[in-house]
Amino acid sequence: MAGVQARVESALERLLPASDVMPVRLHAAMRYAVLGGGKRVRPLLAFAAGEAGGYAPAADAARLDVVACALECMHAYSLVHDDMPCMDDDVLRRGRPTVHVEYDEATALLVGDSLQSLAFRLLADHRLADDVGTQLEMVNILAHASGSRGMAGGQAIDLASVGKALSLPELEMMHIHKTGALIRAAVALGARCGRARSAEELKHLDHYAKCVGLAFQVVDDVLDREVPTATLGKTAGKDAAQGKPTYVRVVGLARAKEMARELQAEAALALSRIAGSTRRLRELAEFIVLRRF
Amino acid sequence: MAGVQARVESALERLLPASDVMPVRLHAAMRYAVLGGGKRVRPLLAFAAGEAGGYAPAADAARLDVVACALECMHAYSLVHDDMPCMDDDVLRRGRPTVHVEYDEATALLVGDSLQSLAFRLLADHRLADDVGTQLEMVNILAHASGSRGMAGGQAIDLASVGKALSLPELEMMHIHKTGALIRAAVALGARCGRARSAEELKHLDHYAKCVGLAFQVVDDVLDREVPTATLGKTAGKDAAQGKPTYVRVVGLARAKEMARELQAEAALALSRIAGSTRRLRELAEFIVLRRF
Repeated sequence: MAGVQARVESALERLLPASDVMPVRLHAAMRYAVLGGGKRVRPLLAFAAGEAGGYAPAADAARLDVVACALECMHAYSLVHDDMPCMDDDVLRRGRPTVHVEYDEATALLVGDSLQSLAFRLLADHRLADDVGTQLEMVNILAHASGSRGMAGGQAIDLASVGKALSLPELEMMHIHKTGALIRAAVALGARCGRARSAEELKHLDHYAKCVGLAFQVVDDVLDREVPTATLGKTAGKDAAQGKPTYVRVVGLARAKEMARELQAEAALALSRIAGSTRRLRELAEFIVLRRF
Repeated sequence: MAGVQARVESALERLLPASDVMPVRLHAAMRYAVLGGGKRVRPLLAFAAGEAGGYAPAADAARLDVVACALECMHAYSLVHDDMPCMDDDVLRRGRPTVHVEYDEATALLVGDSLQSLAFRLLADHRLADDVGTQLEMVNILAHASGSRGMAGGQAIDLASVGKALSLPELEMMHIHKTGALIRAAVALGARCGRARSAEELKHLDHYAKCVGLAFQVVDDVLDREVPTATLGKTAGKDAAQGKPTYVRVVGLARAKEMARELQAEAALALSRIAGSTRRLRELAEFIVLRRF
């Protein structure tokens, strides 16, 4: 995992516009938003899914670098916009001031906008699949995952649910969009960098990703309750204080922890149905459920 | 022109998510931002560039519909974000309240984000060129035009220039990014929907688009000074009042009008160097320079 994290950090350093390129303040702020932090969960999933396909290490790892960077640009953009005063109004992220605090609101808005464009640029500007049609499909997957029926739509549902008592299915629906969509995209894009897979195998991989995405959010809610701000690197207890529905609130702490383990088991079951080495994908599901921050 | 505007309106109606699809408020706001207004300059340019290539009307017009919608989604997103309080803080657009006034700031932020994703989705989800490689190039063109070295970068330069005395080259640099990049993309994408063109012809088309993009901004600055708010559909005199550099301020009203005509002539010269019917492209350059709102 540390190896993948290091190579993604170095790929991001290389693929983000340099901070001496005009407009310099915007580019510096984009780098601030993306570099030097984060667990890089989506890149880890993309690499693991690519590896599970039995990829040719040298060529495909270079492709996975680009896919990982596109995912991190998209993820970082969503964090920058979500932290803004008109959304979640947060001042701390990855242990540092959020972008609108460190720079200003207008810059934060443009940083998010530009990172989204860059994510698509990366997917279109590099050779990522043997077949160009597959690569166009990858653009489509990322566009769908990030849009109004994916990540951005999930954030809209989240905002609309503040102060409301959601049912468990409603809460799941929100998270399947808000964090789940991009996590599924990470696995789908990573898988497409490797050898061609059957529709059946892609379906099992997607089910794995769906379970992992939900587990990720359940654990996030547990940590938000149990871990102090200093360890978390972001403001702890914020969701609860803002009246946002969380798994802990809806099903209780004990049941939430149980659900995370059940989702991990379901993810492992999906993996058992596909060929190739799925060890890393299995380990990642475990890491996501057992992590402490 | 009215024919193209009507078919683009109908394509947008069809290709934007319906307002009864979850999340309904976000989708309604996206439709509010895009439908029912605007000159549709970028679609007109895309259609004219496609026609100049001598396209097969039925198939290629359907492709141009999709390209036109992607351009309008991208353009509308930039307007929604630019109008927000942390940017230009405007309350009126196309004669109606801006999105953050009609809805709220958080929704406006997500509308812009989602429209950008949708623009890329449209380019990836429909067959737009005979050759898939060309279509991937189209994604790349739009991503570059909208990002930190295109439209979003131009807005960053714009914000940084408030209250400063820019030179004419600095002002041009700002507008080549802010409005010019997407106008050039409109011509480049439209041209790629038609028959294949030589690199030489694409270069002349791009030079045409660069001139038209600058002329568009020069005329915008002239109108901002000369036309009242009611006719303009947006707040007149705003740029000048906010201390933003405009062509009228930098070179004076008379010289600005002269520059617009010179750019129109240069655009026509570029067109004279390519084969096919360029009548509509020439007429559009004229329309952009002679328009009254």
